[in-house]
Amino acid sequence: MSKEKNSFPKRRKLTVDDYVEGVLSRNRTIIAQTITLVESNSLKHMEMAQEVLKKLLPFTGNSIRIGITGVPGAGKSTLIESFGMMLCEEGHRVAVLAVDPSSSISGGSILGDKTRMESLSKSRNAFVRPSPSGGTLGGVTRKSRETLLVCEAAGFDVILVETVGVGQSEITVRSMVDFFLVIMLTGAGDELQGIKKGIMEIADAIFVNKADGDNKRKALSTKADINQILHYLQPATEGWTPRAYTCSALTGEGIPEIWKVISDYKEFATNSGVFEKRRQNQLLDWTNSMIHDQLKSMFYSDEAVKGLLPEVEKDILDGKLSATLGVHRLIESFMESRFHGGVKEKR
Amino acid sequence: MSKEKNSFPKRRKLTVDDYVEGVLSRNRTIIAQTITLVESNSLKHMEMAQEVLKKLLPFTGNSIRIGITGVPGAGKSTLIESFGMMLCEEGHRVAVLAVDPSSSISGGSILGDKTRMESLSKSRNAFVRPSPSGGTLGGVTRKSRETLLVCEAAGFDVILVETVGVGQSEITVRSMVDFFLVIMLTGAGDELQGIKKGIMEIADAIFVNKADGDNKRKALSTKADINQILHYLQPATEGWTPRAYTCSALTGEGIPEIWKVISDYKEFATNSGVFEKRRQNQLLDWTNSMIHDQLKSMFYSDEAVKGLLPEVEKDILDGKLSATLGVHRLIESFMESRFHGGVKEKR
Repeated sequence: MSKEKNSFPKRRKLTVDDYVEGVLSRNRTIIAQTITLVESNSLKHMEMAQEVLKKLLPFTGNSIRIGITGVPGAGKSTLIESFGMMLCEEGHRVAVLAVDPSSSISGGSILGDKTRMESLSKSRNAFVRPSPSGGTLGGVTRKSRETLLVCEAAGFDVILVETVGVGQSEITVRSMVDFFLVIMLTGAGDELQGIKKGIMEIADAIFVNKADGDNKRKALSTKADINQILHYLQPATEGWTPRAYTCSALTGEGIPEIWKVISDYKEFATNSGVFEKRRQNQLLDWTNSMIHDQLKSMFYSDEAVKGLLPEVEKDILDGKLSATLGVHRLIESFMESRFHGGVKEKR
Repeated sequence: MSKEKNSFPKRRKLTVDDYVEGVLSRNRTIIAQTITLVESNSLKHMEMAQEVLKKLLPFTGNSIRIGITGVPGAGKSTLIESFGMMLCEEGHRVAVLAVDPSSSISGGSILGDKTRMESLSKSRNAFVRPSPSGGTLGGVTRKSRETLLVCEAAGFDVILVETVGVGQSEITVRSMVDFFLVIMLTGAGDELQGIKKGIMEIADAIFVNKADGDNKRKALSTKADINQILHYLQPATEGWTPRAYTCSALTGEGIPEIWKVISDYKEFATNSGVFEKRRQNQLLDWTNSMIHDQLKSMFYSDEAVKGLLPEVEKDILDGKLSATLGVHRLIESFMESRFHGGVKEKR
């Protein structure tokens, strides 16, 4: 600790190598600063972040990446605190990240909040980082994925990526983790209604939380209900049958089972090759989705397109223009605008 | 029939107005020719098709668009034949289209096959059209959507869009119809396992087919199982609770219920405004997805990109390059290539 405090104020501007060495030597202050660099929207910082990442890449990949989602009130934070503390006590180093695309709207992340994970954020073996505010889901995704790499390079061997059930955020988190855990609320069958569309189909395991006291019986019944539904669905991971379990972050019952299930999964997925294959696919999918995002962003931020789009959409809705012709007109104007822009630059 | 046969051979080259008038006067030969025009990949035909469509647009929109999917063997064709004949007898005019993105691979559509819907394809009030072979899902989608508009302009008031459970095809069909019907097989609970991911969550109704003879009891039990699962899922259409039913295309039992459910749905959705709102959203979503497809196509078919992509992907997988930097490099090379290409064209 004292070393960190001493070394920090002396040099305000860290070099690429400072960041890299700091992360690799597990200096908490520099880990946090590196993540801040990765999350920056300034072009200069982004370029530097990429240089840092390039040097960190060889030290990444050695963690199990676990996504965690659940409805508000399901007790995600308490569960992560309890689960994370258990792992730390067993000698693991645990990083908790959050992906919350709404954070830029609400003005601050509601997730990965250090005050909600008090013991864990104080633990020497844990690192809790709230969601970046990226503006777009694409921005948050890029930042979260790169933060995850920084944490891996810093020797965290369990990365928990928490998310909230907003829009596409679960799909996004699913696409960056090895194992996806869904936390559900105990309750009568009826209370389960309104489960987010598709959520059970991307789960590798479902834990019914708050299975304590009077709730326990209801939780067991919910577990059985969920198992029945899971029975009808195609598993999220080829060859792995997702199941439902009960747990209580309050009493600690069932919390060790989370790690057991994940360990079993890792063994299965490593042996079957699914583990490595998924990571490779995730990396390529992400690359291509960044490409698509940039192409869209170039298109929709183009001045000519911005001027024409509302009019074209109105004509299409009014039945004055076929969608195909409308698209043709927009793409033409985009190409023209890019072309003239290009020529102008040359002069 | 004789009129069509006489008028056809005389003029081999139809004008835009010939197509438009032919469709509006419900000339079956010209309807088929117009769809062939819409499905053509030749630039000249595509331009002409767009002119025809523009003139037909004011006459479109007056049908109920019904998507139908089901596992192979669920008896979709027999059910569509039975359901379609019933509608024709009640005075409706029924068009059956098919969306089968695999048709370009298998060398021919397995769907909307006239030989499998013999009575229906002979009926004066029905029109059966196999899937276009579009090469890509985007191509098939564009063709199917425009074929649907041609059929509406030709006075078909019920459009059935059949699809097979391949890849994204159900999602695509869901995005072009008002109501989405899933046909399932009767059978013991276990046989339901492996239901396509997400399929129940896009259904407005599920019909368990082949509920006849010895199968009937099992079908009723399957229906109950499905209703229980549906109970846990968010409905596909806001305010509308999807339910399971049984039917038999063989005995005709339950077939009238299909129309009853759809009629109830239409009344509900029209009154609540969901009907019109969905159509508008579908149109705008489609427009934007065509834009995205074209941007991607421009990118991936670019020579510079084609040369660089495999190398960049390899470096990313090998951990020599961050995904963000890789994407940056690809986009730069795309822009450069477009820019130089543009300047060359000018000279």
